[in-house]
Amino acid sequence: MRLSRYFLPILKETPKEAEIVSHRLMLRAGMVRQEAAGIYAWLPLGHRVLKKVEQIVREEQNRAGAIELLMPTIQAADLWRESGRYDDYGKEMLRIQDRHERDMLFGPTNEEMITEIFRAYVRSYKDLPLNLYHIQWKFRDEVRPRFGVMRSREFLMKDAYSFDLDQESARRSYNKMFVAYLRTFARLGLKAIPMAADSGPIGGDMSHEFIILAKTGESEVFCDRALLDLPIPGEDTDFDGDLSPIVNEWLGSYAATDEKHDPAKFEADIPEDRRISARGIEVGHIFYFGTKYSEPMKAVVAGPDGTEKPVHMGSYGIGPSRLVAAIIEASHDDAGIIWPQSVAPFDVGLINLKSGDAATDGTCEDLYAKLTAAGLDVLYDDTAERAGSKFATAELIGLPWQLVVGPKGLAEGSVELKNRATGEKQSLSVDSALARLIG
Amino acid sequence: MRLSRYFLPILKETPKEAEIVSHRLMLRAGMVRQEAAGIYAWLPLGHRVLKKVEQIVREEQNRAGAIELLMPTIQAADLWRESGRYDDYGKEMLRIQDRHERDMLFGPTNEEMITEIFRAYVRSYKDLPLNLYHIQWKFRDEVRPRFGVMRSREFLMKDAYSFDLDQESARRSYNKMFVAYLRTFARLGLKAIPMAADSGPIGGDMSHEFIILAKTGESEVFCDRALLDLPIPGEDTDFDGDLSPIVNEWLGSYAATDEKHDPAKFEADIPEDRRISARGIEVGHIFYFGTKYSEPMKAVVAGPDGTEKPVHMGSYGIGPSRLVAAIIEASHDDAGIIWPQSVAPFDVGLINLKSGDAATDGTCEDLYAKLTAAGLDVLYDDTAERAGSKFATAELIGLPWQLVVGPKGLAEGSVELKNRATGEKQSLSVDSALARLIG
Repeated sequence: MRLSRYFLPILKETPKEAEIVSHRLMLRAGMVRQEAAGIYAWLPLGHRVLKKVEQIVREEQNRAGAIELLMPTIQAADLWRESGRYDDYGKEMLRIQDRHERDMLFGPTNEEMITEIFRAYVRSYKDLPLNLYHIQWKFRDEVRPRFGVMRSREFLMKDAYSFDLDQESARRSYNKMFVAYLRTFARLGLKAIPMAADSGPIGGDMSHEFIILAKTGESEVFCDRALLDLPIPGEDTDFDGDLSPIVNEWLGSYAATDEKHDPAKFEADIPEDRRISARGIEVGHIFYFGTKYSEPMKAVVAGPDGTEKPVHMGSYGIGPSRLVAAIIEASHDDAGIIWPQSVAPFDVGLINLKSGDAATDGTCEDLYAKLTAAGLDVLYDDTAERAGSKFATAELIGLPWQLVVGPKGLAEGSVELKNRATGEKQSLSVDSALARLIG
Repeated sequence: MRLSRYFLPILKETPKEAEIVSHRLMLRAGMVRQEAAGIYAWLPLGHRVLKKVEQIVREEQNRAGAIELLMPTIQAADLWRESGRYDDYGKEMLRIQDRHERDMLFGPTNEEMITEIFRAYVRSYKDLPLNLYHIQWKFRDEVRPRFGVMRSREFLMKDAYSFDLDQESARRSYNKMFVAYLRTFARLGLKAIPMAADSGPIGGDMSHEFIILAKTGESEVFCDRALLDLPIPGEDTDFDGDLSPIVNEWLGSYAATDEKHDPAKFEADIPEDRRISARGIEVGHIFYFGTKYSEPMKAVVAGPDGTEKPVHMGSYGIGPSRLVAAIIEASHDDAGIIWPQSVAPFDVGLINLKSGDAATDGTCEDLYAKLTAAGLDVLYDDTAERAGSKFATAELIGLPWQLVVGPKGLAEGSVELKNRATGEKQSLSVDSALARLIG
């Protein structure tokens, strides 16, 4: 993509309304724009990151055997009357009447609807286990939306729902998502720690939050430092096998949010030099809630003995839109964002220090063509901006590599390759730089 | 994907409420489920097709130089008060009050919001031309939704918006989308004909609908048969070049919807054997509306002479969700859907006629592994259903190829490869079948 043709509205000033660093950087880097309180448009740069996050989430859901579908945003209130949550949910639910004065709502979550879909088609335990997920926009009418896309009203959510004949099998489905989440966050460049949690309005009696440590975190968390070094399950993990050893290893060390924290146990169990007490950001939440929805909504299957039983369910949420902000909270410096390679909006920023100069233009065009042909996403700064401004933009938007082509270096046959994360710069021949990037 | 682990709820009965063939087939093939009047969940098979359609639309938008972003579904009413459309739009707009009693709405289209984004950042003609698009769920509260996803209330829309300094340049932007649409529909396996159209609530004075011919079309259309044989612009089309010869060729032959039809001209200009009068389905609509939104909303740019002028805009819509149904209307037979390769939910249906038989199981597993490794999407029917039921399902869901492995053929070393579109069957060795599919 040539920057001269792209839509990247960089802000020079730091917007006053932004209280946390991810919000400030997302606004300054032209990633999002607020369209109403807690409602954001994703501008092209932000949209690219969002799509990459979404795709990693999807790949790991698929790997764990979950099946993608897509439920609508608007739901009938009657579904929620069946489960009893319509009146309970309170003002966070955006309630709507259509032209025929039927009560509708913008889905804040989808337990009811997926249960309705399940009960319409599935009759037998032979069709279980089943895990259905979707990635869809949701709405929660927060009284005070803040922190940009970290706590917005309209947000993108991946929510998966598992269906099993009994609790034991449901536990296996839970473990699959547990491991999928560990892999997902690791691929996003995040160290996420699962912690026992309250289940809130979703209900149920087993629940874990996945939390990353960040100074700007919304809540206080406590954990054993050993958790930061646990290995992440590999691509070759057998999701049909027994995952409980992995899950038990992660749950074997102390980790708790404020609401579940037990200071006495924390101090008794963990040597002082391994005690972490820090701020945390929730990036995922998984629930086992048994028959909470299947019972009132009559989602039953015939078991091996022919008798019908309500299915045991769990639900599993990750918010890709919130994750974009969480990644920035975990990875930035004073100059801007530092994207992990896996979610970077472009792989390389190619910077022409003297657009209009025949030599730099020629070399840049050649590099742009070759890098693009090799499958790399390149943002080519071919604008007439001065060098200082181009560098500042490159640092701010945080692409993993900056490839700088200036007339002075080029006269000596060299270009400069900079690693955004380490700050390391190397002067290289054009061919060496290409080889380094294409690998 | 193994069918035994997939979620493919085939209906044996034809649902009574479905009036048109695409709706019937989508329900029977387990592609969608109605969750409320005109509101559908996309079940896994349908979701796969929807995603493929969406991706083709995206690729052709990108090729034409449009830039993707993503606007939210919920909009502030105040934006629409600025353009004057809030009161005009009528009951099709889903109006909402949030918890603070602010007037909001579920976007039926996005001219206002994109104009707001544009005016917030763009100041100079040097940043033009610009074309921004998104692919997002929209809502129009139709008084009588029908025909399944063909005329639903919640629907997926790709809408692009072009910004230019003047009418001449806006015409070039219009032509880019015109050509992008020709390419998009051709890649979807559709013969779409552009026809002059009224511009309705979007406004403006130039507008074309893209219409495919189908018996079940919603409106009557008239055109010159020669249009069916016009060449589609190739992948190498230079979108920065002059596209008017292509556009003029398409607009040079008679084509009109009922509302624009001129019978006298139709008969005078076109020889009788080339006159087509048929039913048509609208699959895309493009508009040039000049300064209709930029003027009241003050989206202005400084021209080369420094004076500020309202930008000239156009908008360009394609509905991927409606397209899924339109493709089925255009491509089916009595047994079911016939997917064009480009949007088929899977490339191959691998049918094991005797699951549990060591020979057929072994061959199927081997074929499944090899086809998948070659990058093909395979739906492997490994269920215990009887052969007749498996064949019926395969015909109904309409994958381009069926690869049938039965004990009798296998004893002679052969499998059967069937082309869904032509009905042609071939008995082949396992290796020949593989070679045929992998190519």
